[in-house]
Amino acid sequence: MFDSTKSKPRAKHFSFEVTHTDQSTRARCGLLRVGNHTIETPVFMPVSAQGAVRTLKPGEVGGCGYEILLANAYHLMLRPGIDIIESLGGIHSFMAWEGSILTDSGGYQVMSLAPGVEVTPQGVSFLSPLGGERVFMTPESCVEAQSRLGSDIAMALDECLPYPSDPRRVEESVSLTIEWARRCLEEAKRRSQTIFGIVQGGFLSDARKRCVNEICGMGFDGYGIGGLSVGEPREVTLEIANETARELPEELPRYLMGVGDPLTIIQASSLGIDMFDSAFPTRIARNGTALVGFERFNMRNARFARDPGPLDPKCDCYACRHFSRAFIRNQVVAGEILGLHLLSIHNLFQLSKLFEKIRGYTREGKFSGFLKEVEALRC
Amino acid sequence: MFDSTKSKPRAKHFSFEVTHTDQSTRARCGLLRVGNHTIETPVFMPVSAQGAVRTLKPGEVGGCGYEILLANAYHLMLRPGIDIIESLGGIHSFMAWEGSILTDSGGYQVMSLAPGVEVTPQGVSFLSPLGGERVFMTPESCVEAQSRLGSDIAMALDECLPYPSDPRRVEESVSLTIEWARRCLEEAKRRSQTIFGIVQGGFLSDARKRCVNEICGMGFDGYGIGGLSVGEPREVTLEIANETARELPEELPRYLMGVGDPLTIIQASSLGIDMFDSAFPTRIARNGTALVGFERFNMRNARFARDPGPLDPKCDCYACRHFSRAFIRNQVVAGEILGLHLLSIHNLFQLSKLFEKIRGYTREGKFSGFLKEVEALRC
Repeated sequence: MFDSTKSKPRAKHFSFEVTHTDQSTRARCGLLRVGNHTIETPVFMPVSAQGAVRTLKPGEVGGCGYEILLANAYHLMLRPGIDIIESLGGIHSFMAWEGSILTDSGGYQVMSLAPGVEVTPQGVSFLSPLGGERVFMTPESCVEAQSRLGSDIAMALDECLPYPSDPRRVEESVSLTIEWARRCLEEAKRRSQTIFGIVQGGFLSDARKRCVNEICGMGFDGYGIGGLSVGEPREVTLEIANETARELPEELPRYLMGVGDPLTIIQASSLGIDMFDSAFPTRIARNGTALVGFERFNMRNARFARDPGPLDPKCDCYACRHFSRAFIRNQVVAGEILGLHLLSIHNLFQLSKLFEKIRGYTREGKFSGFLKEVEALRC
Repeated sequence: MFDSTKSKPRAKHFSFEVTHTDQSTRARCGLLRVGNHTIETPVFMPVSAQGAVRTLKPGEVGGCGYEILLANAYHLMLRPGIDIIESLGGIHSFMAWEGSILTDSGGYQVMSLAPGVEVTPQGVSFLSPLGGERVFMTPESCVEAQSRLGSDIAMALDECLPYPSDPRRVEESVSLTIEWARRCLEEAKRRSQTIFGIVQGGFLSDARKRCVNEICGMGFDGYGIGGLSVGEPREVTLEIANETARELPEELPRYLMGVGDPLTIIQASSLGIDMFDSAFPTRIARNGTALVGFERFNMRNARFARDPGPLDPKCDCYACRHFSRAFIRNQVVAGEILGLHLLSIHNLFQLSKLFEKIRGYTREGKFSGFLKEVEALRC
């Protein structure tokens, strides 16, 4: 009989190695070793909010080429709760996912999704959007929760500000994020938990620089660039990512949080970013949008009504191997779940292939040519 | 490149053979040969309204043990339209379904779903619930539509009345259904289209008998028992199914339309019913309900919140092999599509296993023992 509590203990090993560096940009390839898995970077992590990448079975996520995904500690803490997932053998067993899992600390979600947020030096409290009760989270309890979930890579608790924010507020917030980072790292060490720090600092170069300097001195296993992709123009995202990435240690993984747009991914890769996550490919799928190269097709459009071809003639995903645009359009227009599922698979597959390309071109020393070609396409 | 219009032409062969008959009930096993497929009966056909069994990929439907499904001519006629499906190579290619397809004529859907219905001897007209335009359907156009879809088994156009109905109205309706059946059969012959007649007659034994006598004299390939499962008590369904099935030819398949409840299926099998269809197992799945033997579990129930076991310890479906009740509950409570998908797979798998049991017990001469056991369970 199936017993979800009998999961194997997970190896705690973590390391990162840069294997190739592009000559004319700062793009690089690397190997992220997480437990028994070796993951090639740059890598994209699909987002699992409630214990599943929306509409997909775990085998389908793997089938799209993914070996690591992001799970959301905030959502899982509220429902079903850390106790339940721990008692069921941890997050991997709960989700039936054999790959690696990075957990987001919940800092971003608390600030963007929860009502009644109160931030003090001690921690952050908010009202649960589900039950209405006040939830209190400290840097320590946040790392504890991720560790008890069985996260392969935890993220430090940070304060994430909206765009734009008052400069004085940004400076205060950076100080808080630095102090929380220190406490998170201590808790992670006590638990032998792999953990990444998060660089904040809004859209102020000096604040970012101060945050990098302080946090990089602490000795995290890797670094997230947080507080971007919160509504600012794309150029601003790239500018701050550029300034921040330059200051981060060469030998550790750099993770640009919340970016899932193909062009931004390629441009950020040229800045030496190694890891990405975003709900973008699956969210637009559920709105009926297909990623086709650098175009986006609204599958509700009547021009697809009789189209016998696949979403993308060059794509080898399950949806493109089995279904016409006409079929998918009909599913989307009829509000059928299969349509959203097929688009989710297709979009994740497209993004996984894009990362294969980025790694391939970087290894072959052709990344800058690829970057120019793509930028020309979009002008 | 994938091209949905390049589908193989489908063989038109159809035959039915009774292979085993139970000694103490009228339960029987048979082989339905449809094109190149041989399907064991009694058989259940999952329902595909808009070109997909809701939430499932075609391979998943096959993986649950199904070789034939029901497609809904009414829904497909309205959206995307017969022309489009025909131009894409027919319904099998459109849906990427390699098994057999029985198409429902739409009589039931017109009467139950469409506004502004007007029935005349010539045919039925109604207002499209999608575009609001008046749609006119004759027995001939109804068979033409199913034939152009590429249906393996078409159903005659019938008039389906609500429960209860005025006896005089039932008599008139039976006369109309008989006349329409004659015209449907003629059209089907012109098109070499396999077609089943449908016996109506509401809940009046005499009207049912008249309908059977007339329609069975025409020489259809099989017979549907229609107009049941429209809100009447279960005992009444079985009584009318019993009276009607007795009058139907022994050598042809008997199809009880719209019945998907496990107990009713077993009892109707004892009356010599060979085919069933219903959206029941997938509809209750989308409401968060799991079929477990003859029980139904509401997966929202808090008692499943920490339950590490599978939905059904005896079940070998994908959901039961990979996920705990706690995980599925969390998915359902969080409104996640994966939960509804896993329950749909589980419920279809359970029903497919039930039909394996029915066939197995019938072949082994043990059907009546099984029937008694099940009826005792439910008392």
